[in-house]
Amino acid sequence: MPIITLTTDFGTKDHFVGAVKGAIYSTISDAKIVDVSHEISPFNITETAYILKNTYKNFPEGTIHIIGVDSELNEENKHIALLLNGHYFVCPDNGIISMIAAEINPSKLVEINIHDRLETSFSVLDVFVQVAAHIARGGTLEVIGKPMQDFKRLFELQPQISDEHHKIIGNVIYIDNYGNIISNITEKLFKEVGKGRDFILKASRYNFKKIHHKYSDIVDFKLPTHLRQTDGSRLAIFNSAGFIEIAVYKSNLKTVGGASSLLGLDYRDNITIEFLK
Amino acid sequence: MPIITLTTDFGTKDHFVGAVKGAIYSTISDAKIVDVSHEISPFNITETAYILKNTYKNFPEGTIHIIGVDSELNEENKHIALLLNGHYFVCPDNGIISMIAAEINPSKLVEINIHDRLETSFSVLDVFVQVAAHIARGGTLEVIGKPMQDFKRLFELQPQISDEHHKIIGNVIYIDNYGNIISNITEKLFKEVGKGRDFILKASRYNFKKIHHKYSDIVDFKLPTHLRQTDGSRLAIFNSAGFIEIAVYKSNLKTVGGASSLLGLDYRDNITIEFLK
Amino acid sequence: MPIITLTTDFGTKDHFVGAVKGAIYSTISDAKIVDVSHEISPFNITETAYILKNTYKNFPEGTIHIIGVDSELNEENKHIALLLNGHYFVCPDNGIISMIAAEINPSKLVEINIHDRLETSFSVLDVFVQVAAHIARGGTLEVIGKPMQDFKRLFELQPQISDEHHKIIGNVIYIDNYGNIISNITEKLFKEVGKGRDFILKASRYNFKKIHHKYSDIVDFKLPTHLRQTDGSRLAIFNSAGFIEIAVYKSNLKTVGGASSLLGLDYRDNITIEFLK
Repeated sequence: MPIITLTTDFGTKDHFVGAVKGAIYSTISDAKIVDVSHEISPFNITETAYILKNTYKNFPEGTIHIIGVDSELNEENKHIALLLNGHYFVCPDNGIISMIAAEINPSKLVEINIHDRLETSFSVLDVFVQVAAHIARGGTLEVIGKPMQDFKRLFELQPQISDEHHKIIGNVIYIDNYGNIISNITEKLFKEVGKGRDFILKASRYNFKKIHHKYSDIVDFKLPTHLRQTDGSRLAIFNSAGFIEIAVYKSNLKTVGGASSLLGLDYRDNITIEFLK
Repeated sequence: MPIITLTTDFGTKDHFVGAVKGAIYSTISDAKIVDVSHEISPFNITETAYILKNTYKNFPEGTIHIIGVDSELNEENKHIALLLNGHYFVCPDNGIISMIAAEINPSKLVEINIHDRLETSFSVLDVFVQVAAHIARGGTLEVIGKPMQDFKRLFELQPQISDEHHKIIGNVIYIDNYGNIISNITEKLFKEVGKGRDFILKASRYNFKKIHHKYSDIVDFKLPTHLRQTDGSRLAIFNSAGFIEIAVYKSNLKTVGGASSLLGLDYRDNITIEFLK
Repeated sequence: MPIITLTTDFGTKDHFVGAVKGAIYSTISDAKIVDVSHEISPFNITETAYILKNTYKNFPEGTIHIIGVDSELNEENKHIALLLNGHYFVCPDNGIISMIAAEINPSKLVEINIHDRLETSFSVLDVFVQVAAHIARGGTLEVIGKPMQDFKRLFELQPQISDEHHKIIGNVIYIDNYGNIISNITEKLFKEVGKGRDFILKASRYNFKKIHHKYSDIVDFKLPTHLRQTDGSRLAIFNSAGFIEIAVYKSNLKTVGGASSLLGLDYRDNITIEFLK
């Protein structure tokens, strides 16, 4: 029962996702198809990388991940298939893989060469499904592609560290369903650079001196409920994906707003940590 | 083939839902996972209750329902697992269960105690999936939790009935995909109190003297199509979930509007029924 | 393992989709349920037809397609079940089938007659699921319905061809997730009428003299990247569904806009092709 995941910018209204699922079931009748996300902003591979990076390892090894974001074949955007960290990926060679797992080398990597002469604009349906079916049947990558040395390297925004390790300058890389702002500063980097020093985290015009592990850490449970006033409070947190996040407690983008709207922070804006002493 | 349903406020763009599904398939490879809803308004347990109340009984007995709304563990929000009406629920003890089925006592109920020392902010992934997997393998609740007497009771808005049974004062509890307004007055209550008397249903500044069972009841099929003018008409209906609903015939929230926008009614507003005689 | 697809205007927040899936699994425990779309604009059968027309053939023969758009039973909107082109459809007799496959005659067609005396407003749950289950178990259509001669014919907007074949006047029939505008002029019709002649395609106040097969056809890969300026460029394309589409290269409805917003074109607007000579 092979598992095939789909991560695309197709949206869920149009026929694209349904057509791809139909084609998969027509070829691999016992496939399990899982939607990772179809709500990626059109052509946005930074978002795609953040989402897949935090998803793929939860699946069993051998899972096949199809990425349908900016996947039209052209002379600068080849199609590749690879085995990386025990997982198969079928995707365009547009840098996405280096953003998902820059530090890991794929154990197998091929440029897909099963394209018919007529190239199409719906690569996921016409090419990726066939490649996934081949892998699901236990076929080797060499049959559907030509071995290659490396994929395209494209580095997402990296946090900068000041010369004397007094400062980390990061950026907003993702805004989630609650409007919470995710930076590219990981808990790991924060600890390596900070070595336990006190610090000031600066996001927009707000300062934070503590980074929590749970949202409700800011609630004082000793106070009676009506005196707490935590809803709408700002906090910094190491989120469950391991990144520093600026959140608003119990926010709601459609009503009271979230961190993104309330703090006026957007994609690529700076999040800075200054270590004291 | 255990069935596991997911009801969350995660949205469908972020990595949360995909990560949870991957973790479930990694543990229970033959699970059937069903999305009930991921579009719950953030932290809104009234919406969650309305949706699950009208969904869960359609699934076979033994189905495991995971609820990921306001589920971060803290000293006032414990995690519980229970068997209720033949269905398993894994959820926070935040009142949600009493709003889904206040009248039924669970045949088993435990406070989950398999948490690691480090508490996380992603309870559904880190705790609920393990509990569901345990249940899916036929494990007993006592292994993953400590038996408890009762869950937290939190009553949703209840309709008030006037002393002499001349009036029911209800409230808007849900607004659906068509903009239709659902009240907390059930067909059952309406009939018990009204006993067949004539009535006036008041919603905003509109009065209704009849409650239908089908939307198209208001169409006069004897008239030629171009004379019907039913699109956009207001009606009261006992909806398929058994509640009194104010609808606009063939409404569309994105174009002509729906009952909520056209009648200016919002969550918690009053819907009143006055019985005559 | 029968496959059942769902195409509805229910949205994904409410309990409707979850309730239907629960009922299906309760009856056909080994069903594979596939969401084609639940984001159809309320009651819009033109959208439904465009989406299903481009989806259903990708599924294996024998797949059962449930259509829940404008499906409440009334004297002018009967329920039908049919076998068409190897696929089963369970849907209202509201013209939708003629818009999906006007040119194909169903090999079997019945008017569903298993309704209980009390008619409900949730036909998909109360009727269509039972019919699908019956078909999935290998039952014949005659058992759940009365054979009928033909379904309701309702023709979607058809392109007009001028007397001397100098002109095709088409219309916008769909706007997709990227804001691209899809016309009702197929590549087949374009070639039959045009017979290789030069042409001017007119959409809003823009003219196109070429229709591409891939979006990236408009990129001049010989130029260095920073000189290309293709993002945001307009182009006409034969889309993967076989229709002429007006697109904006790498558009994004939420930021820079798409063809629909940038060209000011909406549903039903004209797209005209004038052949030269």
